[in-house]
Amino acid sequence: MRIDVITIFPEYLEPLNVSLVGKAHARGLLRLGVHDLRRWTHDRHRTVDDTPFGGGPGMVMKPEPWGEALDEVTGAAGHPQEGSPAGGPEPQPPVLVVPTPSGRPFTQQVAVELSQRPWLVFAPARYEGIDRRVIEDAGTRMPVRELSIGDYVLAGGEAAVLVMVEAVARLLPGVLGNVRSHQEDSFAPGPMANLLEGPVYTKPPVWRDRAVPEVLLSGHHGRIERWRRDEALRRTAALRPDLIERTEPDAFDAADRKLLEELGWVAGDGSRFWRSPEAVEE
Amino acid sequence: MRIDVITIFPEYLEPLNVSLVGKAHARGLLRLGVHDLRRWTHDRHRTVDDTPFGGGPGMVMKPEPWGEALDEVTGAAGHPQEGSPAGGPEPQPPVLVVPTPSGRPFTQQVAVELSQRPWLVFAPARYEGIDRRVIEDAGTRMPVRELSIGDYVLAGGEAAVLVMVEAVARLLPGVLGNVRSHQEDSFAPGPMANLLEGPVYTKPPVWRDRAVPEVLLSGHHGRIERWRRDEALRRTAALRPDLIERTEPDAFDAADRKLLEELGWVAGDGSRFWRSPEAVEE
Repeated sequence: MRIDVITIFPEYLEPLNVSLVGKAHARGLLRLGVHDLRRWTHDRHRTVDDTPFGGGPGMVMKPEPWGEALDEVTGAAGHPQEGSPAGGPEPQPPVLVVPTPSGRPFTQQVAVELSQRPWLVFAPARYEGIDRRVIEDAGTRMPVRELSIGDYVLAGGEAAVLVMVEAVARLLPGVLGNVRSHQEDSFAPGPMANLLEGPVYTKPPVWRDRAVPEVLLSGHHGRIERWRRDEALRRTAALRPDLIERTEPDAFDAADRKLLEELGWVAGDGSRFWRSPEAVEE
Repeated sequence: MRIDVITIFPEYLEPLNVSLVGKAHARGLLRLGVHDLRRWTHDRHRTVDDTPFGGGPGMVMKPEPWGEALDEVTGAAGHPQEGSPAGGPEPQPPVLVVPTPSGRPFTQQVAVELSQRPWLVFAPARYEGIDRRVIEDAGTRMPVRELSIGDYVLAGGEAAVLVMVEAVARLLPGVLGNVRSHQEDSFAPGPMANLLEGPVYTKPPVWRDRAVPEVLLSGHHGRIERWRRDEALRRTAALRPDLIERTEPDAFDAADRKLLEELGWVAGDGSRFWRSPEAVEE
């Protein structure tokens, strides 16, 4: 996979050289380019922003540097006049990813989709955002995904790029050592889909007078699996009722249903589970 | 505000020296300490992880280094035997923030709450997480917030720390130049609460044959405000129907209601808005 990032804070992307993404890069599983947007300014102040049309606070990122930067970084992609030689295959354009609190939610499903593309270009904005015409213009040549990593406001898109690149990179073949490990992730498809992971423990068996739950020392795999699932259900029901409500009813087995009912949940009309009003406490 | 981060990848936190957080730090608005967890290991391999009790893939972070690190970084906080001199005020303990996909959602509201605390300690985990007993033990001495920045899986909590610190730091007094600017943020309380921001534009008025919407050049503030609100409503209805559904009905004025109805929304029983089934398209 190839990943390019265009930013006015290239040094913010340094963590991409560290840890898992850094290793993927070093091992050639990922080609990474970080580009300073100011390279595509032409005034002595290297201006990238200006006041918004229509008034209001804050500044808007100017269209010209972004337009030129995207043209150069994405190259001939999608420009028919500069395309591949006659008869050659059309070069596949990158996906342009624009982090913004006004985007669709970035979820594990989106991370999986993006991990299957050969090339991603990230355009993190600062200030009040990028002039809208940049997104529209790019959209005529390549798929554009405006994505929000969550319902909070950052100072700029760079931290969101770190999050998205890490979530995508760990799904690339060969990047994680243990494949089974990410099949058991929170949010991964499978039996634990939509359930938060419960508590984990390692040695010593007693630490600061706190003992590891006995079942985990029992060696009884069936009981351990059931205990883990119960803990995951309890935690999800307490902290993320939306995930329980969203789950198809046939994903719950008889023991799950019994536990959910004990916790005050009721099977609704469509037979999905809903919290009974008495059980709701914040 | 004081912020401490305990991590096995201190270099991942380098972006905290850049941009807005870096400036807040340089101007003394924020005291920042990044600590290498391995300082609190005592074997020659500086081991921080071990296999999980009960089996399964991946590794779990050992309780001892985390316990010692938290003791030292949080100091006397919450330890009565090492507390302040007789008669002095009890030192206020920090809030321990543990980023985890199994946490409650980190939202702008949580960012606002955290920004009002004098001291935050972040404990980003790697591998399958930290031995549960560390969280329980810390919870006897200080408030603990296990928080998830979104429904996706990262390689570790460090990227989530960057996100949370940035979201919190920009809310501190004196950090953002223009106070009005963050009052108009997506997700900020006020008239635009729960609405995504619409498009923004700056000079030139025409770029690559694309013109700025005429209303923004009109100088008519009332029309501009209404246009911006309509655009925000349209975008929110299209990309984040959950936000419209969550909004109290009296937050919508007559023009909002008319637009939402044109977009296929209907006022429900409790008079909140719901998408009519015909209008649902993905």
